[in-house]
Amino acid sequence: MEGLSWCSSPGLLTDLYQLTMAQGYWSSGASRLEASFYMSFRENPFGGGYSVFAGLEPALTHIQALRFGPEDLAFLAGQHAVDGTPLFAEEFLKWLAGFRFSGDVDAVAEGSVVFPGEPVVRVTGPMIDCQLVETALLNVVNFQTLVATKASRVCRAAQGDPVVEFGLRRAQGPDGGLSASRAAYIGGCSATSNTLAARAFGIPAAGTHAHSWVMAFRSEQEAFDEYAKALPNNCTFLVDTYDTLRGVERAISTGLRLRESGHEMLGIRIDSGDLAWLSIRARKMLDDAGFPDAHIVASNELDEHLIGSLKEQGAAIDVWGVGTKLVTAHDQPALGGVYKLSAIRESDAAWEPKLKVSEQTAKITVPGRLGVRRFEDSGKLVGDMVYEIDSPPSGDTVMVDPADPTRRKSFDVLTSFRELLEPVMRSGKLQGRQPELAAVRRRATEEVSTLDATQTRFLNPHSYPVGLERSLHDSRMALILKERGVEE
Amino acid sequence: MEGLSWCSSPGLLTDLYQLTMAQGYWSSGASRLEASFYMSFRENPFGGGYSVFAGLEPALTHIQALRFGPEDLAFLAGQHAVDGTPLFAEEFLKWLAGFRFSGDVDAVAEGSVVFPGEPVVRVTGPMIDCQLVETALLNVVNFQTLVATKASRVCRAAQGDPVVEFGLRRAQGPDGGLSASRAAYIGGCSATSNTLAARAFGIPAAGTHAHSWVMAFRSEQEAFDEYAKALPNNCTFLVDTYDTLRGVERAISTGLRLRESGHEMLGIRIDSGDLAWLSIRARKMLDDAGFPDAHIVASNELDEHLIGSLKEQGAAIDVWGVGTKLVTAHDQPALGGVYKLSAIRESDAAWEPKLKVSEQTAKITVPGRLGVRRFEDSGKLVGDMVYEIDSPPSGDTVMVDPADPTRRKSFDVLTSFRELLEPVMRSGKLQGRQPELAAVRRRATEEVSTLDATQTRFLNPHSYPVGLERSLHDSRMALILKERGVEE
Repeated sequence: MEGLSWCSSPGLLTDLYQLTMAQGYWSSGASRLEASFYMSFRENPFGGGYSVFAGLEPALTHIQALRFGPEDLAFLAGQHAVDGTPLFAEEFLKWLAGFRFSGDVDAVAEGSVVFPGEPVVRVTGPMIDCQLVETALLNVVNFQTLVATKASRVCRAAQGDPVVEFGLRRAQGPDGGLSASRAAYIGGCSATSNTLAARAFGIPAAGTHAHSWVMAFRSEQEAFDEYAKALPNNCTFLVDTYDTLRGVERAISTGLRLRESGHEMLGIRIDSGDLAWLSIRARKMLDDAGFPDAHIVASNELDEHLIGSLKEQGAAIDVWGVGTKLVTAHDQPALGGVYKLSAIRESDAAWEPKLKVSEQTAKITVPGRLGVRRFEDSGKLVGDMVYEIDSPPSGDTVMVDPADPTRRKSFDVLTSFRELLEPVMRSGKLQGRQPELAAVRRRATEEVSTLDATQTRFLNPHSYPVGLERSLHDSRMALILKERGVEE
Repeated sequence: MEGLSWCSSPGLLTDLYQLTMAQGYWSSGASRLEASFYMSFRENPFGGGYSVFAGLEPALTHIQALRFGPEDLAFLAGQHAVDGTPLFAEEFLKWLAGFRFSGDVDAVAEGSVVFPGEPVVRVTGPMIDCQLVETALLNVVNFQTLVATKASRVCRAAQGDPVVEFGLRRAQGPDGGLSASRAAYIGGCSATSNTLAARAFGIPAAGTHAHSWVMAFRSEQEAFDEYAKALPNNCTFLVDTYDTLRGVERAISTGLRLRESGHEMLGIRIDSGDLAWLSIRARKMLDDAGFPDAHIVASNELDEHLIGSLKEQGAAIDVWGVGTKLVTAHDQPALGGVYKLSAIRESDAAWEPKLKVSEQTAKITVPGRLGVRRFEDSGKLVGDMVYEIDSPPSGDTVMVDPADPTRRKSFDVLTSFRELLEPVMRSGKLQGRQPELAAVRRRATEEVSTLDATQTRFLNPHSYPVGLERSLHDSRMALILKERGVEE
């Protein structure tokens, strides 16, 4: 807006303190420090039992594009501290002009199911590099993971019926809408109303017409007839501008004339009223009139719970239009993912694990350079184990629930597993190509289907086992005791 | 993302159905229709008594930039209906290539307080022009009004203390964050952590440092000392990485050394724990150590209710850092503003009022080309009257509450009023310049302060009177009865 976007100034898409800290590391000589950070989140959103990881490709694109242009640097040069002196040293800004991200990124494949307490992205590299990507990485992955997870829930409630996302007018700004459409598609939506998202990401575009179309003509019948004349191949009539069932009668009447001209009405849309009752009545009217294939699209503040309830009532709805509640993740509009320092080293010295202690046990971090192994048994996911990549477990292994260390789970040497974090960037260079969005979407649907029904239900789901590999747990406990001991 | 943004393809930032309807109007010859639409919302967000109107300037910038480039048109040419035939006619796309918005826009001044049930934007012009701006207008104004309103509440809870917005990492995508920072500033925030928003909108940028800074050094003391060496003019120390009050001791210790070198510590930040208790203890420690001017910044999932509670407990907090709950408008993440057709005419014929009937009374629209008069008495706003601009009220006037027509309010001829909707665009051209953002922010603060305390309280506020001018109310009732009568 006002002519400036994050695309033109990627380096500035960050919290100011990342830049002041960067200057601090630079001037204190600590810029030779290498660090390892990980991103994770503490709870599945919406009280659910899983999350769908999304936002990786746009985050990587941003990280690779990250730089500071002359105008960005001029802006920073004009920033002053409270005492009126410049906040940034000229020499630092010169250095920043040549900055490119040079670190490594390992991440879960986009579209995978992920769980609280496990690293989903690991960033390793010069301390400054790790800090300068934090804000944008969190911004993009937090929001897209949130919306992809919501979409997955909505699509599961729709039991295979197509779900069309049309939330743009209620989304959080233009690119809020763009990101939401992308994530909703990953989570399982079939199409979007957002034309720009359709072009940008290759998502199928879909739409019907608005009440204003009907109001613009002398009668609803004339409005439907004119629409059919103008767009005979795209006739889904919105029937609730005046009286829904009268609207259905008129849609049928136009649909019969349309058929005579060699085209078939696609269906109707209902946007208000008792969607269960009205859809059942409308279905019968359409069937009786010879339109058994005409679909019924429903919309109006839908979410997974309303869709579930309509399904239970036997609503005759074939296509679900979902907007506001999906793109704003209405009942929990933030994921709360965090990005934590977990290891550090001076140039080529050994890695030193780092830990943040907190009075809230859930906020104590996990030290070390972390990996995740996902164990599988007969096609079912059975547990994710977080481990220190310099001490990978071998043979029979045990993982410990950090929230209750007496809860443990063993995997014998025969249990198959795969590494959840894959190398996606090395020394600032993208590794290979990220998959097509349609493939990401397929992965999401497939992975969710491998979960147990007890883990995917909406109400009080069974929590999926995520734990710390035993030796990592033990060293973490020792470190917490040491940190707390130091303070006594 | 993926190289395409709404800045480069403004025309596509819309729901597909706007484009198919546009083709419908174009091909049915109804493109000579002129229409009047208005945007309004049905409820103040957060259970509050007012809203702060925001987003106008970016919406106007978008409307003026709205066009379809060759690649946008190629994309549309590739869209197909279910039967495989092209959705858009070649001739229509040629016409679209030359499209520019040519209508008029009248709107409330940005930063004004606004209320449910009144038009906040009126768009008048060719039917197609009115439709093609709907989605983006709603997107931008809905979200920014929501966040500006939230910010106003948060700032009022802070009772004049500075509130710093730092929600970027939890915002709805990059431009979600950018829009949120702008709106938060309008609502009263003093600064943002979002460096890009600071540059784009001239908002003061602010920040401290992260836990990772402290963890990167051998001890908290060394971390503070190194920070003070590197950025002596910017020392607000984050004290809760290990143990908050120990952290305060160390901040004081570094602060004393800093003072010897001729610089003054700005303050400390607390990001966890019992903020009331810890801030009171920290205040005493700072005062006793000779730092009575050092400020205490607090953060951690704050909103207006938590800030109010901390104030009641006598928390010694001077600066409030607010992120997630503000930029996501956490307890109500969508405003739900709508855009409704209210009048229509064929070329230069008389305007015909239009109305959408609904089974939900609150969703019945208001017919006519609408204006709003805001009445004032002794510097207090006393009521907003919606009227038909072709029949402006004169002399003593009465307005009727559409939700309860027996509730009426009279204004005598001496009550002063002003027109709330101002001409901001004529025949597609911006009228004058929009005010500076700082002026918009001042307006918001000033207007909120003119409201009665009963209207601004957080719990069950008194609702501000908004009504329909009596003759508009009467003609609306007649039209509703006619619409319902026609159906019987």
